[in-house]
Amino acid sequence: MQTEVQSRDVFYVSDGTAITCQTIGHTVLGQFPFSVNQQTFPFIENEDKVEDVVKEIERSYNQSGEKPLVFFSMVIPEAKQRLLTANALFYDVLDTMVNLVEKDLNLEAKPKLQRSHSVGKDHEGYFDRIAAIEYTLAHDDGVSLKGLEEADLILLGVSRSGKTPTSLYMAMQFGLRVVNYPFIDEDIAKLRLLPQFEIHRHKLFGLTIDASRLTEIRSNRLAGSDYASAAQCKTELNSVESLFRREAIPYINTSNMSVEEISTRILERTGLKRRIF
Amino acid sequence: MQTEVQSRDVFYVSDGTAITCQTIGHTVLGQFPFSVNQQTFPFIENEDKVEDVVKEIERSYNQSGEKPLVFFSMVIPEAKQRLLTANALFYDVLDTMVNLVEKDLNLEAKPKLQRSHSVGKDHEGYFDRIAAIEYTLAHDDGVSLKGLEEADLILLGVSRSGKTPTSLYMAMQFGLRVVNYPFIDEDIAKLRLLPQFEIHRHKLFGLTIDASRLTEIRSNRLAGSDYASAAQCKTELNSVESLFRREAIPYINTSNMSVEEISTRILERTGLKRRIF
Repeated sequence: MQTEVQSRDVFYVSDGTAITCQTIGHTVLGQFPFSVNQQTFPFIENEDKVEDVVKEIERSYNQSGEKPLVFFSMVIPEAKQRLLTANALFYDVLDTMVNLVEKDLNLEAKPKLQRSHSVGKDHEGYFDRIAAIEYTLAHDDGVSLKGLEEADLILLGVSRSGKTPTSLYMAMQFGLRVVNYPFIDEDIAKLRLLPQFEIHRHKLFGLTIDASRLTEIRSNRLAGSDYASAAQCKTELNSVESLFRREAIPYINTSNMSVEEISTRILERTGLKRRIF
Repeated sequence: MQTEVQSRDVFYVSDGTAITCQTIGHTVLGQFPFSVNQQTFPFIENEDKVEDVVKEIERSYNQSGEKPLVFFSMVIPEAKQRLLTANALFYDVLDTMVNLVEKDLNLEAKPKLQRSHSVGKDHEGYFDRIAAIEYTLAHDDGVSLKGLEEADLILLGVSRSGKTPTSLYMAMQFGLRVVNYPFIDEDIAKLRLLPQFEIHRHKLFGLTIDASRLTEIRSNRLAGSDYASAAQCKTELNSVESLFRREAIPYINTSNMSVEEISTRILERTGLKRRIF
């Protein structure tokens, strides 16, 4: 009896960063029962580079006897045509969708050399993003509580509940200015809202987490410590959650959530909008 | 004569974060000559929520007299079927591609409830990502030069050349541990490589930038300062670039590049691979 665990060669090819090709290809292929050997070719923006990719594809085909899968996005017509001559299965990650929209709306698309992850000529969004990252870094982990009036969001929670990665993700990907403030051991017994937060109540949002998951995460950092003990985690979470309820601060449980999920749930609950795309 | 600047309602709908729907929809629509009013509906995972979205779609159709565009990804079959009954133009951002792969490979895909931006049951990648973010934060802006042996990459450059956003992006999205170290004014006159970096030479990578762009960025922060002056920017960049050349440190010019482009160019030049997707 033969096992059927196959493996396929996969290429992500773009005249841009190929990040969108990777994202889509990776998610699509995750639904198929084979493993992948993946290679990424970004910035394939001239003939020589296309020739190199075509060579790699042909090598893969000759070695494996199977056409590799190519998830691609190419704006330059000549480069795209040349790529498509190679022995492969091709998936155009953007144009497939663009063509459907064109048909439905009876409108012609104008391909842009400037793609999803490039900076506009006017640097549109660039400064917003950098400013959001800087603001968020300067207000990480309770380091500073100055300039709260500029904050879009103030995250509260115990150590390791996901505040820092969530804050940085929301700054980087959504362009939002996020303050995060940890409740530390000394606060826990007599937990109260800092007076500085009073006039910014509408910006407050809490993160909590299952005690067992918190123990796991903290143990990964400081195994065997009081800090990571189940008892300590439970005490901290109980008093923080009762503060959230007492003060009517909206909060979510981040156990088993990725940073993307936590960030999106926060937008959903607060009504905040992404500033950048 | 009527102007033809139209506007269309656009919905991003998903039983996950809808981040992939937004990314694809936004890029696709950027190629069409109309503006968009966009709304995002993440976590549409039960009947009630689907009904709410359908109502919003119907409201948009009734108000505008035009079918809105819906970029969606729904794993739950019943929810998907109900969504598709609304008066809209539908674009399935993942299944469109999944179906093409199924046909080509003559294989059936198994849709996963666990999508691109969720945490695996075994928290696969979770700790790598968090550890990379923490390491990178702890080594931002020359704060610490301890533990360089754990670094994947050491970024060098003048203030405002893009080191911090690039480091954080590479940690967050690629799972890489990045140190960044600034050359400050006092170093510039007698610029040399820190002895600590000697045994990690293979990890060094330089960022530079056009003097005019650096002046613009610094002025945005401290208008009229010496720090932002064209003369100061030129002096710093000249001496840093000559250090890069003298020490054979690979470097790129980040002017007009997004954080995604800088990060991808660095992977390309160094051969480093993404650790997470």
